[in-house]
Amino acid sequence: MRTGFIGLGQMGAAMAANLARAGHEVTVYNRSPDKAAPLAALGAKVASDVAGACHGEAVMTMLANDEAVESVAFGRDGIVASLPAGAVHVCSSTISVALSRRLAAAHADVGQHYVAAPVFGRPDAAAAAKLFVVAGGAADSVARVQPLLDAVGQRTFLMSAQPEAANLVKMSGNFLIAAVIEALGEAMALVEKGGVDVHVYLDLLTSTLFSAPVYRTYGGLIADKRFEPAGFAAPLGLKDIRLALAAGDEMRVPLPLASLLRDRFLTLLAQGGDKLDWSAIGGLAARDAGAAGPA
Amino acid sequence: MRTGFIGLGQMGAAMAANLARAGHEVTVYNRSPDKAAPLAALGAKVASDVAGACHGEAVMTMLANDEAVESVAFGRDGIVASLPAGAVHVCSSTISVALSRRLAAAHADVGQHYVAAPVFGRPDAAAAAKLFVVAGGAADSVARVQPLLDAVGQRTFLMSAQPEAANLVKMSGNFLIAAVIEALGEAMALVEKGGVDVHVYLDLLTSTLFSAPVYRTYGGLIADKRFEPAGFAAPLGLKDIRLALAAGDEMRVPLPLASLLRDRFLTLLAQGGDKLDWSAIGGLAARDAGAAGPA
Amino acid sequence: MRTGFIGLGQMGAAMAANLARAGHEVTVYNRSPDKAAPLAALGAKVASDVAGACHGEAVMTMLANDEAVESVAFGRDGIVASLPAGAVHVCSSTISVALSRRLAAAHADVGQHYVAAPVFGRPDAAAAAKLFVVAGGAADSVARVQPLLDAVGQRTFLMSAQPEAANLVKMSGNFLIAAVIEALGEAMALVEKGGVDVHVYLDLLTSTLFSAPVYRTYGGLIADKRFEPAGFAAPLGLKDIRLALAAGDEMRVPLPLASLLRDRFLTLLAQGGDKLDWSAIGGLAARDAGAAGPA
Amino acid sequence: MRTGFIGLGQMGAAMAANLARAGHEVTVYNRSPDKAAPLAALGAKVASDVAGACHGEAVMTMLANDEAVESVAFGRDGIVASLPAGAVHVCSSTISVALSRRLAAAHADVGQHYVAAPVFGRPDAAAAAKLFVVAGGAADSVARVQPLLDAVGQRTFLMSAQPEAANLVKMSGNFLIAAVIEALGEAMALVEKGGVDVHVYLDLLTSTLFSAPVYRTYGGLIADKRFEPAGFAAPLGLKDIRLALAAGDEMRVPLPLASLLRDRFLTLLAQGGDKLDWSAIGGLAARDAGAAGPA
Repeated sequence: MRTGFIGLGQMGAAMAANLARAGHEVTVYNRSPDKAAPLAALGAKVASDVAGACHGEAVMTMLANDEAVESVAFGRDGIVASLPAGAVHVCSSTISVALSRRLAAAHADVGQHYVAAPVFGRPDAAAAAKLFVVAGGAADSVARVQPLLDAVGQRTFLMSAQPEAANLVKMSGNFLIAAVIEALGEAMALVEKGGVDVHVYLDLLTSTLFSAPVYRTYGGLIADKRFEPAGFAAPLGLKDIRLALAAGDEMRVPLPLASLLRDRFLTLLAQGGDKLDWSAIGGLAARDAGAAGPA
Repeated sequence: MRTGFIGLGQMGAAMAANLARAGHEVTVYNRSPDKAAPLAALGAKVASDVAGACHGEAVMTMLANDEAVESVAFGRDGIVASLPAGAVHVCSSTISVALSRRLAAAHADVGQHYVAAPVFGRPDAAAAAKLFVVAGGAADSVARVQPLLDAVGQRTFLMSAQPEAANLVKMSGNFLIAAVIEALGEAMALVEKGGVDVHVYLDLLTSTLFSAPVYRTYGGLIADKRFEPAGFAAPLGLKDIRLALAAGDEMRVPLPLASLLRDRFLTLLAQGGDKLDWSAIGGLAARDAGAAGPA
Repeated sequence: MRTGFIGLGQMGAAMAANLARAGHEVTVYNRSPDKAAPLAALGAKVASDVAGACHGEAVMTMLANDEAVESVAFGRDGIVASLPAGAVHVCSSTISVALSRRLAAAHADVGQHYVAAPVFGRPDAAAAAKLFVVAGGAADSVARVQPLLDAVGQRTFLMSAQPEAANLVKMSGNFLIAAVIEALGEAMALVEKGGVDVHVYLDLLTSTLFSAPVYRTYGGLIADKRFEPAGFAAPLGLKDIRLALAAGDEMRVPLPLASLLRDRFLTLLAQGGDKLDWSAIGGLAARDAGAAGPA
Repeated sequence: MRTGFIGLGQMGAAMAANLARAGHEVTVYNRSPDKAAPLAALGAKVASDVAGACHGEAVMTMLANDEAVESVAFGRDGIVASLPAGAVHVCSSTISVALSRRLAAAHADVGQHYVAAPVFGRPDAAAAAKLFVVAGGAADSVARVQPLLDAVGQRTFLMSAQPEAANLVKMSGNFLIAAVIEALGEAMALVEKGGVDVHVYLDLLTSTLFSAPVYRTYGGLIADKRFEPAGFAAPLGLKDIRLALAAGDEMRVPLPLASLLRDRFLTLLAQGGDKLDWSAIGGLAARDAGAAGPA
């Protein structure tokens, strides 16, 4: 397929590369143009502005947050103004339900299509084309861009005909991970103060009921109190909890555990944790219990 | 080995049967004597009182709570008064840290040994001798009863020389499960109100990051709002969260997520949930959000 | 003084009337023009648009929320575009810290002044010119509009040279009231289930340590479970808690009690409480305890 | 009246002195006998054991906690064993609902009467006979000891014929105070980080809606971050919150704000706050926000 790709961060660069490797005709755009060179080496064209990446059947965007997506989507030379009628905007960024809904409406107004397609997976999964894609949108729009989704991920889950439902699922996933971090943080603070070796404890947990990767990964970081370097920085964790709370607020779904997580992230950041991995909130229970904290 | 076994509930009966099948000389005792008949059929002797089960090298107890253990352990004809010097009391019940410490002291005072050995696993795992045993106590005491532990479980994790540390680990495990239930309850209330099919959602979660049995089992119950019959009744869930909070209180470890879970259980029970499975707290978020609740 | 006044809701109409009665030359504007008639009867001029109320030394605004203030402040014929250089915008609405900061900057850019002056008090206090005014802004700007503030309130508290600090104080005040409601709600649910007459209980509280009006007023509503008609509707209560949480989020101040209050409001609204007084969150503890709830 | 008085701490000594001054025939007992000397100087007799204070129409007890009350009430020479039939035990200690119920039953079994009569007020109010007495028990029993209650307090509130209801009210009062401390702590952390002078802020609050002594007293301590010396030490605050939570647990009343307070107290104590005033939990929000904390 002929597609644009906007946003060449760690995740986006890997996804765009996989599109090129899969044989799609990709035109990339990134605000800092130096990120585009490796893609050019794989055969991608390099656009000099947003509009330049909007000439194909589709354009994918993979950007940091609502503000970044707004800045490329709207305005005189933005995606909505530039994409041909009938083409599809595939938005893989983790954005708010409100913005996703607004994008759907804006594209529909001018005869374009919109698919929300956030992904689960870290940069290594993106590089290996092993992402899980969570798609929301009209079934035929999703079907149209399925070749692109297949090129970046190992499986696509179609959640709903409402695009924003996919964004909701994405942020709920990060909420669930943060809940695991908090629960492990409290449990480990408790048993460690009671004289248990937390590495033996973690071995027990992950050999039995909690054999999922998420317990192994984050449990290990908390047990080691090893919160640097950040695989996923604490401010990004807070951002996703905020998105979940904002969605809950709009739809009137109280989320007390998400509220607790939000306060944990604010505490961590207020005390200088900006550079730490988000699993550092798992060290706050130990700190409150009088042990050494994450900072 | 020659051992007594006290407490023939669903779990205890299965464990005692496995001891008998493994060739140990078991003398069982249960307050309601009719529970002993199936064990007699497997070759176990049946004692008519607690003391009658205390003539071997060890006695295992598998009872519902602190009160039940206190009633067989202490007093004129209790375990402490009846067990030979040098014998081992293996206590597999989920009891408080405080009682476990008190038992350890009482047995030591009269030259007996005490091993806390709570187990992870539901009745079907007990029947299959596939329990995970969490042991606490002096290494040589644990070693002495290892043949018994091997007969009931698939693996023993030695957590600490302090017996009560094993109890702490046991209650922390149930806390971690309840945390999963709460997190899934909130996430599913959110996405369902946002138009997502929760069964597709659960398939996504358990196919990716949350591939542990605990997510599959409890996620399924919450998605189906199927909280009866109870596999593990809500009052037992509350009991274990209470034990964790009591341990945290004594050791000064604040546990905000455990506090939230306690309030969830109280809400469920105040509204008539005594007969429901403990996963029914996972339906409270949906009820708070205006959907039908667990009752 | 010659001043405009924009926003003739229950509060604003009373305040504008007091300005007129105090002898100020007031020009009023309201989106629905019928609200202006009673003011005209008091001698006020009536403007037909926002700009028409911006010809004096000052303009006061008393509007429902951020959106309403934005809509009159910005844009081609808004306050910023219309007010003479050197004049003062006195904003008495309960708005966000972020918007207050943005207004301060916008007015400063064009040589105007901005004073945030939210008020404490219900409509009866507004009618009696007994409001408490919480002012933020440059001391000389506040001094300039002091005659206006004196005409609507019984006392002005100057909180900070930063206008938005006054908004922060205002929302914190409503947070403190909501905290009283929640605390009373829990305490009364507890003692009532324990067999205490809550009216006797409230008499005890307000005769002793809790002799403030806020305990009498809200305690009485909760004791009577009388949540209609709304003196201050639940959605407005949620709005102010949201503002406090947003300010806390921006400044990295975790507010766990505010988080709890937010979830209470969402629960109330999700279950149909839009028309109820905000004190109805004080009925949720009783409902969770199995008694009849606020709805 | 002829009455005994057991427990001559700061509160009890003042109350016993007021009984003597009011002309009652008082026999005092205290574990450390040196505390009795000032009472003897006021004409009280001094007993050498608990039983020696149990020869009158009544005996009042004012002790630190459940354990202390149990130790004087039960056992061979305790109050229940020593008091004449028909006499009244007036228990002014802050004890659990469970113990109060147990005392009521034990006294009734042997034909004695039991009145729970905890008090509100600090030591200075006790010295001035200005306590507020919260009474629970059969109306005629309370009437019988009214002269004693009148001698120690300024007013008696009869809450219920169930004695333990008075204990419930007492602990709920301390819960309400702790809730004020937490709310003020969060509000002041927020406005202070936003540039507001907290003393001006407190003046505003206590001049307007929050004119109760509790806001002035605790607000002042938090504003000054002056948590030593302790007027009421943090471990005592935790004790009362624990009692409220235990009562809520038994009666199935979830109390999320009380849960939050419990976690605050545990955090304070885990970090070395045993000697601090309980208002020091009001400094934790500021500490979580990155400011200097209470330690």
